[in-house]
Amino acid sequence: MDIVKLIREKDMLGKTLGIEILEAGPGYAKTRLVLDQRHLNGVGTAHGGAIFSLADIAFAAASNSYGIVAMGISVSISYFKAVTEGILTAEAREMALNHKLATYLIDIKTGEGEAVALFQGTVYRKSSRHGAAE
Amino acid sequence: MDIVKLIREKDMLGKTLGIEILEAGPGYAKTRLVLDQRHLNGVGTAHGGAIFSLADIAFAAASNSYGIVAMGISVSISYFKAVTEGILTAEAREMALNHKLATYLIDIKTGEGEAVALFQGTVYRKSSRHGAAE
Amino acid sequence: MDIVKLIREKDMLGKTLGIEILEAGPGYAKTRLVLDQRHLNGVGTAHGGAIFSLADIAFAAASNSYGIVAMGISVSISYFKAVTEGILTAEAREMALNHKLATYLIDIKTGEGEAVALFQGTVYRKSSRHGAAE
Amino acid sequence: MDIVKLIREKDMLGKTLGIEILEAGPGYAKTRLVLDQRHLNGVGTAHGGAIFSLADIAFAAASNSYGIVAMGISVSISYFKAVTEGILTAEAREMALNHKLATYLIDIKTGEGEAVALFQGTVYRKSSRHGAAE
Repeated sequence: MDIVKLIREKDMLGKTLGIEILEAGPGYAKTRLVLDQRHLNGVGTAHGGAIFSLADIAFAAASNSYGIVAMGISVSISYFKAVTEGILTAEAREMALNHKLATYLIDIKTGEGEAVALFQGTVYRKSSRHGAAE
Repeated sequence: MDIVKLIREKDMLGKTLGIEILEAGPGYAKTRLVLDQRHLNGVGTAHGGAIFSLADIAFAAASNSYGIVAMGISVSISYFKAVTEGILTAEAREMALNHKLATYLIDIKTGEGEAVALFQGTVYRKSSRHGAAE
Repeated sequence: MDIVKLIREKDMLGKTLGIEILEAGPGYAKTRLVLDQRHLNGVGTAHGGAIFSLADIAFAAASNSYGIVAMGISVSISYFKAVTEGILTAEAREMALNHKLATYLIDIKTGEGEAVALFQGTVYRKSSRHGAAE
Repeated sequence: MDIVKLIREKDMLGKTLGIEILEAGPGYAKTRLVLDQRHLNGVGTAHGGAIFSLADIAFAAASNSYGIVAMGISVSISYFKAVTEGILTAEAREMALNHKLATYLIDIKTGEGEAVALFQGTVYRKSSRHGAAE
């Protein structure tokens, strides 16, 4: 099954937060969010959890792009800049791909290209394939 | 201003995802989430972004508990177990508190007490206080 | 083969830096370092790399304690306090243990018990056992 | 004072492990290590602590390059490949620079350019300058 289609249809957190997948390919994905009320924290800026979720969906799309089920096992994120409105994008690139493990780096930026956060995540790749009866 | 009250009233991501603050005190907080459709990823388990957000709100409540504005600057999270339903809690404890920096460890567990994830986060403490006109 | 014996005899970085294993058992280990010239950075305090190495050896001893070869795949460390002399210890505890993955939390402290750093690390557990001909 | 000169002369861990600074400039640095006995772990591959230390010195050189004292506060590292011999390099690039905080990404590679590890680190920038009487 097409992983981008799967995420678009079934990733309910993405739907809840209005996160779109703009592009995806082998080891690559780009997501987008238009900031609104849903994404804000107590001081009125984009919530760390919303920024993380935007990047996490790019991470999932990129790491599952080979059809092998990939589960996030550890992630680090650094935040650089508080934002209050506008567009955020997250772009995932593959830094290493081994048989059972792979690591991705995801840049989160504003619509104007300013760096907002940097997300580094590792997945464990299962033996099962997406869409296989388990 | 009471930081727990501030988060309860104004943290819109927390409202969007149904995250509650159960307890909070100096350097401490505990949050809860009852898993439902909103929190699932494409394979039907609790989304990394939902688990992160639950912990992130405990992190915010604990780190802002002294009235000084604290901003998350870096976080690491490790995921241990996929969950599909039930209650998740996140409990934040202070590991270090300095003038400008502080670090918290947040345990995420199921209602039965099984470890789901571990979140380690550092904040930068600003000079301003919550509720002060800036 | 006894993993503590293996590390004591063959971990050359540990020997180079004078890192000792004080205790070890299933999913647990404690290491020690007496700070000297070798461990300092350019401003005369304990080097981030020396503190990391002390914790990394406790992590290796704890995660390899079951006889299964465990490889560190991702680690996060937060530093709390600059130290210039005295004893440092690192104590590793197991936070999660699954078939192929496990996560450890390592507290680094001074001889007086002050927190110096916190290290969170995940290993991938291979199918091979220590001491087996491969 | 020249930060590269300071690290070359006074970073004792770097001397102990034979880590050289190849290049450095504003927000940038590159270090090198020729693997030998000192750098190995119990299974005969480059020690996580040696790889971390190589990257940490590039991180220190890059983050202190403006003359402001910068202290590492949190670091994440992902390991991709076990290596047993040859050259390792670490190249630090600045991902974000604010008044009090800055984040660097350090790629660790073999002499042949294969990715070995990825290090993401954040510093706190003090008010003091290098070489100033404190």
